[in-house]
Formats: sequence, C-alpha cells, structure tokens
Amino acid sequence: MNAINALPLLGRLKRKPDSHKGDYGKVLIIGGAAGMVGAPLLSGQAALHSGAGWVVIAFLSTNAPAVMQAQPEMMLRHVETIDFGDINPDVIAIGPGMGTSEQAKALLAQVFLMDVPLVIDADALNLLAADYALIGLLQKRKAPSVLTPHPGEAGRLLQLSNQAIQADRIASINALVKMTKAICVLKGSGSLVASPEHAPEICSAGNPGMATAGMGDVLTGVIAALIGQGVRNSLNVWDATRLAVLLHAMAADSLVNKGIGPIGLTALEVAYEVRQLVNHYAEN
Amino acid sequence: MNAINALPLLGRLKRKPDSHKGDYGKVLIIGGAAGMVGAPLLSGQAALHSGAGWVVIAFLSTNAPAVMQAQPEMMLRHVETIDFGDINPDVIAIGPGMGTSEQAKALLAQVFLMDVPLVIDADALNLLAADYALIGLLQKRKAPSVLTPHPGEAGRLLQLSNQAIQADRIASINALVKMTKAICVLKGSGSLVASPEHAPEICSAGNPGMATAGMGDVLTGVIAALIGQGVRNSLNVWDATRLAVLLHAMAADSLVNKGIGPIGLTALEVAYEVRQLVNHYAEN
Amino acid sequence: MNAINALPLLGRLKRKPDSHKGDYGKVLIIGGAAGMVGAPLLSGQAALHSGAGWVVIAFLSTNAPAVMQAQPEMMLRHVETIDFGDINPDVIAIGPGMGTSEQAKALLAQVFLMDVPLVIDADALNLLAADYALIGLLQKRKAPSVLTPHPGEAGRLLQLSNQAIQADRIASINALVKMTKAICVLKGSGSLVASPEHAPEICSAGNPGMATAGMGDVLTGVIAALIGQGVRNSLNVWDATRLAVLLHAMAADSLVNKGIGPIGLTALEVAYEVRQLVNHYAEN
Amino acid sequence: MNAINALPLLGRLKRKPDSHKGDYGKVLIIGGAAGMVGAPLLSGQAALHSGAGWVVIAFLSTNAPAVMQAQPEMMLRHVETIDFGDINPDVIAIGPGMGTSEQAKALLAQVFLMDVPLVIDADALNLLAADYALIGLLQKRKAPSVLTPHPGEAGRLLQLSNQAIQADRIASINALVKMTKAICVLKGSGSLVASPEHAPEICSAGNPGMATAGMGDVLTGVIAALIGQGVRNSLNVWDATRLAVLLHAMAADSLVNKGIGPIGLTALEVAYEVRQLVNHYAEN
Repeated sequence: MNAINALPLLGRLKRKPDSHKGDYGKVLIIGGAAGMVGAPLLSGQAALHSGAGWVVIAFLSTNAPAVMQAQPEMMLRHVETIDFGDINPDVIAIGPGMGTSEQAKALLAQVFLMDVPLVIDADALNLLAADYALIGLLQKRKAPSVLTPHPGEAGRLLQLSNQAIQADRIASINALVKMTKAICVLKGSGSLVASPEHAPEICSAGNPGMATAGMGDVLTGVIAALIGQGVRNSLNVWDATRLAVLLHAMAADSLVNKGIGPIGLTALEVAYEVRQLVNHYAEN
Repeated sequence: MNAINALPLLGRLKRKPDSHKGDYGKVLIIGGAAGMVGAPLLSGQAALHSGAGWVVIAFLSTNAPAVMQAQPEMMLRHVETIDFGDINPDVIAIGPGMGTSEQAKALLAQVFLMDVPLVIDADALNLLAADYALIGLLQKRKAPSVLTPHPGEAGRLLQLSNQAIQADRIASINALVKMTKAICVLKGSGSLVASPEHAPEICSAGNPGMATAGMGDVLTGVIAALIGQGVRNSLNVWDATRLAVLLHAMAADSLVNKGIGPIGLTALEVAYEVRQLVNHYAEN
Repeated sequence: MNAINALPLLGRLKRKPDSHKGDYGKVLIIGGAAGMVGAPLLSGQAALHSGAGWVVIAFLSTNAPAVMQAQPEMMLRHVETIDFGDINPDVIAIGPGMGTSEQAKALLAQVFLMDVPLVIDADALNLLAADYALIGLLQKRKAPSVLTPHPGEAGRLLQLSNQAIQADRIASINALVKMTKAICVLKGSGSLVASPEHAPEICSAGNPGMATAGMGDVLTGVIAALIGQGVRNSLNVWDATRLAVLLHAMAADSLVNKGIGPIGLTALEVAYEVRQLVNHYAEN
Repeated sequence: MNAINALPLLGRLKRKPDSHKGDYGKVLIIGGAAGMVGAPLLSGQAALHSGAGWVVIAFLSTNAPAVMQAQPEMMLRHVETIDFGDINPDVIAIGPGMGTSEQAKALLAQVFLMDVPLVIDADALNLLAADYALIGLLQKRKAPSVLTPHPGEAGRLLQLSNQAIQADRIASINALVKMTKAICVLKGSGSLVASPEHAPEICSAGNPGMATAGMGDVLTGVIAALIGQGVRNSLNVWDATRLAVLLHAMAADSLVNKGIGPIGLTALEVAYEVRQLVNHYAEN
C-alpha cells in the first residue's frame, strides 16, 4: 500500500496576486446541537487557518454564541435562519456535534441533494449508519462526498465491531468505499484514505497525542478548506482529502516536535499548526 | 499614477506628553446584524490597536455579546439603546455586518445627516447602490465621507459587472468619486484611493493572503482610527484614509514576512499587526 | 514522613501508538452553580491539558456558556440535560463552584452511588461536612474516592478550627482518612496525601503564589485527568492522586522559575503548565 | 513636590511560605451597567494579576457574561444576587462602568456605610459630584477611601472646568482632599496623589500611550489589589495607593520599552504587565 505522497500538489494553492476571497472557497459547516457547539467551531477555526476564504457555521443549537470571540472572522448562524442556496457554499461539512435528531437527519438528507462537495463526519455518519435510505441518497450524489469515520463509526456503518474494523483496516475501508461510492477516510493510527477510483493509501504521519477530543472536528475543517480552495485552483476533492489527512497528522507531529504534548495536546492547537505546513508546501 | 507615499505624515500622530484619550478620537462603529456580529468587532479591534482613544460599537443584532472578552476596552451597545449625539463621536464607521434591512437603511440615512466624518463600508455600500436618494444625501454632506468598496460593491454602485470594474480600475474609481463626491477606496490587488481633490493613488503593498474573511472590516477600523486621531492632530481625512490603506496592506506583508500566511492569514492578526507600523512611522 | 516520590510511574501514561481517546479517559466534572461557573471550567482546562481524552462539564447554573471559546474541545452541558449513565465517565469530579443547594446535595448523593472513581472538592466537601448521611454513603463506596480539602474545609469536616487543623496537619489528614475511608489530600503549604492503605506523604514542591483563586479547581482537574488516564494504563487512583498533587505544585514552581508570579500567578496558567511536566516524566 | 518613591515598601507583599489566598485579600468590584460591562472586567483582571487572592465582580447589568472566559478565576455576579456582608471583602472598588442610575447611587451610599476600604472611580465620582449628601457620607467614613478622578471628573467634583483643574493641578488635588477627607489621585500626565495626612506626590512614570479607553479601570484594579494584600501584610492604604499609581505607569512604560505602543497600547496589556513589576520589587 502506498503512503499518501501528495504534498507537491499543494503548490496549486499558492496564492495568486490578483485573487480575492471568493477564489479560496466558502465553507459551510453544519452541526453543533445543544451541548456540542464547540465541535463545529473547531472545524471552522481549522478551515480558516487552512486557507478557506469564508467560513459560515450553521448551528442546530439555539443557544450557540453569536460570535467566536477569538475568531470573529467566522459567521455564526442558527441553521433555521439561513438558506443554503443563498449561502452558496463551495463545500459543506456536516456532522460535528450535530446529534442524531430528526432535524439533523433532515439536514443531512437536504445537503445530500445539493450539488456541492460534502464532508460527512461524526453524527452525520451515525445517522447514515442508522438509515439505508440515506445511504441510497449518498450513493446517487453527483458531487463528490468524503466520509471520515473513526473505527467506531466505521463499525456502525458496516455493522461490525470496532475490533473487527481494526483487525483488517484495509478490508474495512474498501467495504466503506463500496457501500458509499464516496471518498472514505478511516481514521486511527495510520489513517487510510480510499475512493472508488483510488486504492487505499496510508498516512505515515501522526502520533497518539491525537487521541483527544475534537481532533476529528479539526480534520473535517482542514478537508473542507482544501476542497474549497481546490474548486478554483485545480485541486480535486480526492487530492484535497488525502492532503488534509496528511497535513493534519503532520501538524500534530510538528507540535510534539516543539515539545507540545503528546499528552494534553489540544485539537485547537493542531488547527492553528496546520497553517504553517500548508504555506510551506504551497510555496515550495 | 503615484503610489501612496504619505508615511511621514504619521509623525503628526506622535503622542504628546500631556494628552488624554479624548485627543485621539472617539470611534463609533455601526453594524453587526444577526449572524454577522463579528464584523464590527474586527473593525473595533483594528481601531483600538491603531490608536483610537475610545471605541463604541452599536450592534443592530439584539443577540450580540455584552463584552468582547479579549478586548473589554470596547463599549458594546445595541444601536437602539444609544443616542449618537450623546456618544458625540469624532468619526463613524458604518456598514460592517450591518445587513440591508430597513433599520440599516434608516441608520445610514441618519448618519449621513450628521456633521461628522464617515467611513462607509460593506452593506452600507450595498444600501447606497440600491437607493439613489441615499446617494443624494451622501453628495450633500459637508463633513468628509470615505467609501471603501471592493470590486463587487463598486460594480453594484456603478451598475457594472465585477469584471468591468477590474478591467479599468482607474476609470472605476474616478467614476465612484464623481458619483459620490467622496473619498473612495477601491479595494483589491493594488488598492486605489482617490477623492474629488486628489487623483488616484495606488497602494503598492499587500499580498493575496488578504483574500480572506474580515479583512475589509479591519481596514474600516484602521481608517476610522486614523481619522479619529487626526481630528485634533492635524491629519486630514484624505491623508488618514490613504495612510490606513497603506498600513493595512503593509501589516499583512509584515505578517507574511514573519512566516504567518499568506494562506490562512486571519484578519484579526492584521488588526493587531498594524500597531507596530503606526508606531514605527509616528516616531520616525 | 516520606515526600511524594512517584514520578517514574508517569511512564505508564506514555502514549501507545495504536490508541484512541477512549484509552485516556472520559472526565465528567459537576459544578458551576450561578455566579461560580468559572470553577469547573478551570478544572476542565486542567484536565484537558493533563491528558484527559474527553472532558464533559455538567453545570448547575442555567446561565453557563454553551462553549468555552478558548477551549471548544470541552462539552458543556446543563446537569439536568444529561444522564450520567449515558455519559459513562471513567472518573467524576464534583464540587467546584457547585454551591450547597439541595440540588447540589442530591447530585452528590447520586454520584456516591455510582461505581466510578470520584474526586470530591470544594462545596461537595462542605455538603459532606454538613450531613453525616452523606459520609455514610461515602464510606460504603466500592469505587475509589478522593477528597481534596483545604484546611478550612478539613476543619468543617472534622469540626475543628482552621488553626487546629494546621497545628497538626498529620493528625488531621489521618482523621480525615479514618472518617471517610477515602484517599485524602490536605492542601496547603506542604500538601499531604494519605489513604486507608497509605501513610501520609508530603508534597515538597509548591510556592505561595498558589495562594490564589481557582488553584484548587485546577488541582481537581489534574487529579481527575490522571485517574482517567490510569483506568486503562495501569495507574491506580492512589498513584494518580499523589502524582497530580506533585505535578500541580511543580507546575506552579516552574512558572515562578520562568518569572511568572508568585504574586499574581493565575490558576489557569498552572493548568496549562502541568502539561509539559506530565510529558517530561511520561517520556523519561 | 516629591515624586512617589515607595517601591521598597512592596517588599511587604513578598509571599510568605505558609500563606493562603485569604492572606492576599478579597476584592469586590461593583460596576458594569448595561453597555459598560467591560470596565469592571478590566479592573478585575488588573486586580488578579496584581496579586489579589480573590476577585468578585458585582455587575449592575443583567446582561453581563457569567464567566470571563480568559479569566475564569474571577467570580461574576449580578449585584442583586449577592449580599456584600456575605462576600466580606477586604476592599471594594466601585464605579467602573457603573452609570449614574438610581441603583448606582444607592449602591454607592450603601458601600459608604461599610467599614471596608473603598476605591471610588469613574461614575461613582460623577454621582458624588452630583450629590452633596453623598459627600457628607464619604467624609464621615472611618475606613479609608481612595478617589481616582481624571481632570474631567475632578472638575465636576470641584465645579471647575477641566482647564481650571489642569492649570493648577496641585491646588486641585488639595481642594479634592479637603472636600473629601480621602486619599485622592488626580490622574493625567504626572498623576498626583495626596491625602489629609500627606502632601501631594507626583508620579514620574507614564507615557501618553495611556491615553486610551479602560486605562483608569485598570488603575482601579491595581489599587484595590494592593490595598487588599496590604490588609494582612502591613501595607497601609496610602502606600498601596501611591504604589499602585506608580506601578501602573511603570507598566505602561515597560510595554512601550518593549515596542508595544504607545499608539494603540491597550489597557488590558497594562493590567498584565503590572505583575512582573510587583514581583520584581516585592522580591528585591
């Protein structure tokens, strides 16, 4: 199996002098039900620091903050106050902290019908695992979809135990791809990425400091940001996804090399650290 | 066309020993409708770090925070709880995140009638583009006005496409000045600034890392702060505006030179970075 | 009396390559009544930076924030919206900012009946001191309990004056252990730790900069995090507790050595500083 | 006139090994009406970083945050939910952002009757200037009082113009002391401090970067913190006040020497910077 080895492609995201924020993508993140509003904020901060031109967060909770005070650049909205068509996103990430309510399920079905790249994470994966009709909608999508299960979520999708997933991770991701017709990331030590068109590749970076809350939310934001930048900069969704998986793990490694963690490493720190790596490889 | 070359004028903002905060201007920022409260906060943080003596933010949203926790120095109010006359600002910035509601429109008309320098940005420009009566009010103002459209907003004002604006930026800014009788900034790569009394000048600093959410809000805050400081320190609105445009772009360049961005550069970082440049040129 | 000398045991918390956040414990913190919501947030930030896999805070206040903006990784909930069984924590810390309401008392009784390690601090200790029935429940617990009184709280438990506690701290902690059948920490200059199975040990680190608000909340978070990590990594509750006491004091010393405090040292800084010590000893 | 030259007295605040937070004072700050909740937060952050053992903020606004997220160590309460006697503060600071409502006036009268040192700032001074009965209460206080007017507030107290105050600052502070029987600080370039027992002294530190919003709120917090620490550490209120005035100005100078400001210097930065100076002089 090949290791992800796509860093030179980041050169395509090198900023062009006469460009504007629209050239780098509008990222819409849907999630954050009551008690879990931090998750999409982490995704958003990761997206912003990974280069997204715009970040809009649509919360399910009616009790979410009106502004992320450390990051006022993000637009925070309640999901029912916005029209996704008006937002006109270049990419949607759905799932972080979303819960599995009927409202969440309806939102997932709604975005499945939109002709925009999707990143499907966390509770969106749990909803999918619980309803074959949703998998049917997913399979029929024309725009690219990316799923980012950890082994527990993969197990629910495949109706296998966590242990069974881990016992043969390659078989598992292949089964996920077959089931979903989507790009799949199987997270864990040595994250895998595969698609209907691409055999599994393995992420050779990363460390166990990543075993902490919110780390998946950050990955979702990085993937969305790279997809969003790719739309007008010739980076396709497959490459954006595998690059994001690699950069996210490399950022965690970079922090550990600087003496931060691995114990107590926080997801937000990884969200910030990705930026220097994206720039390094985009310029070189 | 000349490049903006006004840095020596910043010496006029050098702090005098026996001065107080009233000498450096009270900045009132009006904006922040529901879902967009971050925008005027960015303007405010930029104004404060650029040297404004006081910053008051008047939100249209009823759901805005009572305090910016990272910046408790700013006074945050709901727009309906304040009397602009009581605030007695030295400069008003209107538009960031304001939306285009009837309330927003009424506020814009109200400040047009005030004898105080204005910075008109974002949704205030969209309102202006949609109502010739407002342009009439603007033209009749005695106190200086500054408009800061990006090409999309300029296009709406001039009823041209974004592409047409970009195809001849000099003609575009000249048309804006003619239409508005105001100081105009046409943002973009190589921002232009012009006024009824001054031919266009070009900003030779800046980089495409500035193509990110909130960057315009920050510029608005810097302009307002320099205007506010100028009132009692012999810096006129034209000079304050072109200096702010230059400093804002130089701050973004300074960050990139330090290895921050350009990809993932955030507007708030630019707001903070302006400070060292203002001080450098004020003292030298 | 021996000094706490358990640092080599931290090697057991060294992260294993193929691990996930569940391996490092889910910490549930219960506290934060109206006007005191900061206390459990400090505990949570300490827990997260000490390596907890997950941190969930259950507030008693109905007015607590929905997200800790500087730390979106923590899940913040109102206590009545969650089922402790669904959360399924590896360790519960109860007391920081909890108040002594009937609701608080009922929650304390509820967690006493749960088969999960407990850290009992602050107002939870005051409730205990005021109700022998609660002490009876505590004594009957099968899962380990840790109490962390300062001299004032110890005095209330033992019905002695603060002065009497301080006059013979060893006798005091022995009496606390006898009364509670639990692991006890007697905070103060030279914190003591003892248990029914272990004679008192003294913490030889620490400085009077720790005499500031919130410092106890941070200790509670560190203890909980080490207990949580210990569950699947062979570190028992006694060792986790005495290590946490030592690391917390060493972190305060480390900050003073860096020129931070002792006057004006803040508890949150100690919460962050613990991380580098945990990692240093886990790796060496 | 002598310059304030009391730095060696800070040695009295050197932390004793066997001390606890009660030894360093509980500071209660009353203020923060609607739209001005940031002011007492600045005072509180200054107090905490200057060494206060505890900081409690009592807001007049019903819309204040439940926690200062960057500083969860502070207890934030609505003023009507607390009993000042239960809080039992060692010092009260009243006025920052308090407004001049009837509620504010009643609170001021209430604390005038308490046997605890007071720091009276901002709107509390404006209330005092508007009501001779309050001045009568102030004069009769047994516990020490400290007033911290800027020239505008001093002018309102003395029924003189700002210009008249500035024309003879020494006469002005002497008149304030005579009127109030209190320790008075006349802020401005070369702040003066005087009391019924002490001739005016001048602060020789400071710079015009201090001419910015919130700087007075920070001074109030530093004064309160030093008074609070002084109660059990032999530093009287006069010495605490003049030391605080000097440290606050020195902190602003220290920042400018580090290249921060003077233009755009923020009050919060000064609040943080005081800490290193307090420690330096306490230890040396």
